[in-house]
Amino acid sequence: MDVSGRAPRLRARFDDAGIDALLVTRLPNVRYLTGFSGSAAMLLVTIDRMLVVTDGRYETQMGEQLAAAGVTAAVEIGATQADQHAIFAGATEGVGRLGLEAHGITWAEQRTLAALLTPELVPTEQLVEQERLVKDDGEVARIRAACAIGDAALAELLPTLEEGPTEADFAVALEHAMRRRGATAMSFDPIVASGPNAAKPHHRPSERRIGRRELVVLDFGCIVDGYCSDITRTVSVGDPGTDARGMWDLVAASQAAGRAAVAPGVACADVDRASRDVIDAAGFGDAFVHSTGHGVGLEIHEAPRVARTASGTLNRHTVVTVEPGVYLPGLGGVRIEDTVVVTDDGAVPLTEAPKSLVVAS
Amino acid sequence: MDVSGRAPRLRARFDDAGIDALLVTRLPNVRYLTGFSGSAAMLLVTIDRMLVVTDGRYETQMGEQLAAAGVTAAVEIGATQADQHAIFAGATEGVGRLGLEAHGITWAEQRTLAALLTPELVPTEQLVEQERLVKDDGEVARIRAACAIGDAALAELLPTLEEGPTEADFAVALEHAMRRRGATAMSFDPIVASGPNAAKPHHRPSERRIGRRELVVLDFGCIVDGYCSDITRTVSVGDPGTDARGMWDLVAASQAAGRAAVAPGVACADVDRASRDVIDAAGFGDAFVHSTGHGVGLEIHEAPRVARTASGTLNRHTVVTVEPGVYLPGLGGVRIEDTVVVTDDGAVPLTEAPKSLVVAS
Repeated sequence: MDVSGRAPRLRARFDDAGIDALLVTRLPNVRYLTGFSGSAAMLLVTIDRMLVVTDGRYETQMGEQLAAAGVTAAVEIGATQADQHAIFAGATEGVGRLGLEAHGITWAEQRTLAALLTPELVPTEQLVEQERLVKDDGEVARIRAACAIGDAALAELLPTLEEGPTEADFAVALEHAMRRRGATAMSFDPIVASGPNAAKPHHRPSERRIGRRELVVLDFGCIVDGYCSDITRTVSVGDPGTDARGMWDLVAASQAAGRAAVAPGVACADVDRASRDVIDAAGFGDAFVHSTGHGVGLEIHEAPRVARTASGTLNRHTVVTVEPGVYLPGLGGVRIEDTVVVTDDGAVPLTEAPKSLVVAS
Repeated sequence: MDVSGRAPRLRARFDDAGIDALLVTRLPNVRYLTGFSGSAAMLLVTIDRMLVVTDGRYETQMGEQLAAAGVTAAVEIGATQADQHAIFAGATEGVGRLGLEAHGITWAEQRTLAALLTPELVPTEQLVEQERLVKDDGEVARIRAACAIGDAALAELLPTLEEGPTEADFAVALEHAMRRRGATAMSFDPIVASGPNAAKPHHRPSERRIGRRELVVLDFGCIVDGYCSDITRTVSVGDPGTDARGMWDLVAASQAAGRAAVAPGVACADVDRASRDVIDAAGFGDAFVHSTGHGVGLEIHEAPRVARTASGTLNRHTVVTVEPGVYLPGLGGVRIEDTVVVTDDGAVPLTEAPKSLVVAS
């Protein structure tokens, strides 16, 4: 990864944004620009310098990670938020217009800074996130590694579904299998939703035992060196019957259509539409209650949105999910998801686990 | 837990806050008032009704959890944030002054609502959090259960330190041991910091093998039915030597002093001072680089702060941590932490794992 090359590209956006400097408060953005992986830091990027402020817990780690990333930045330590604000008050004297990440700062903190700092505060949107849209090779490699860990964990554990574990047990086993393979954390708590629970897109694993001949939605991912993976498979131990098979085939077709629509320059809304049209045409449009996908990288949900109302277009080397689903309350549901990288040859899946409904008899 | 009794107590704070209604955007606060455990919802609390807005993923779950909590609230579904804002625009017509949780809403969203809603927007601070300061018996029971799981996991795994696992392996094992015992999630990623890594208060578990006769900081916790636990122990396989023993004894004495200072009506800053004075007196004040503790409940870090600069006082049935530490860059560190509930008899520890430096020889 070329971390040190990122701040110069960010600065090139300052003029269009009408700012002279940017206070980066969103942690994934701080990490993107500095390599720092801790839980507390703010970064001031001016035209000619970077100043990162953290608290005493992270003094050692900050120095190590800046060096490892090859990033030159001044480091100051503030024990409290008030101390840290005071540091930025000093460092921004003489700055005319200071961008604040409007989606990454609370109203309370903005009010505090407005009272304390001399520059005019300008709300900015997605400045660093726009840089993050296009992944470099090192970033794609990390996401690919996280996806491969998920694939391997699933391959190991699918046979155990026959034993009828509880949803919670299976989720724990999934997580453990990913950790053993080197995941540093989960992208999110795994979803294991069986039978009627599969009708809830974000069901939490319960003590319900996974039965035979029922749909089981498995949605999970892990983190490797800061980068996330995301995959969903819907499976059944034995044949779940005609209706369930029909629903699964429909979602599989929708997911394939979405994937096929992915290419550089394509509107994100058109990818959503490609997936949604398949489900709409079958009369299940109302049961596809979420958007088709989202960007994946340092955050499990990041730009771009792949949704009906999305305004962006796909870039080369953007990483997104394609994950349509159908949910019938009381009955169950199906979701199928890949994480893919956008290439000149279309969507290249980073998740490669087989898509098969029936995993055993 | 008496979930339905919480909104009336919140409304009793409206007059003092100068508001006619509150838009609750912080998820832990939404959960506190409704029982909803999903990842997306906003709640409008007016004098005579509650309206909770979520997206289609959570329609089923919201209905189930409101019913389970015995809470009466209207539910509306908005697919996008814009749809949800429009619902609140309609629902707040006629409201004069609408509180927004200034720490729980971004500047961007505040700007959007200001342009869209008719009420005057009033920044509020800690309104729901003030209610959450005092735990009811059901909440304490859940935190206690989460603490007991952590204690049991530690007791199971401490003997395995003799085998020299990597920090990452030990962290995975800790997490797995907590999950197997019923934890629904971790409170935070476990910290396993050995040897020189122990000098970093928030070190991430690495591939470093845990050696003999060195300090190992273990800081972890889990979640049971939404409620968090938090414990730190510092141990060594075999005698780590005079200096390390001295550092450990100092932190243990500091932690005992902090615990002893806990009682209803005591200033949080005085608890911090009780712990800090012990370390200051030994000449290691500069090496105690964080605050003494924090509240624990639906969030792993919540009010009250137990810090030098804290302004609050402890209430009966508030749950806080007491966790002083000493960190010597390049050498190592010690932190010892309990989660305690404030009672008329002082601090009652909810974490009960033994405190012993040497865990094996």
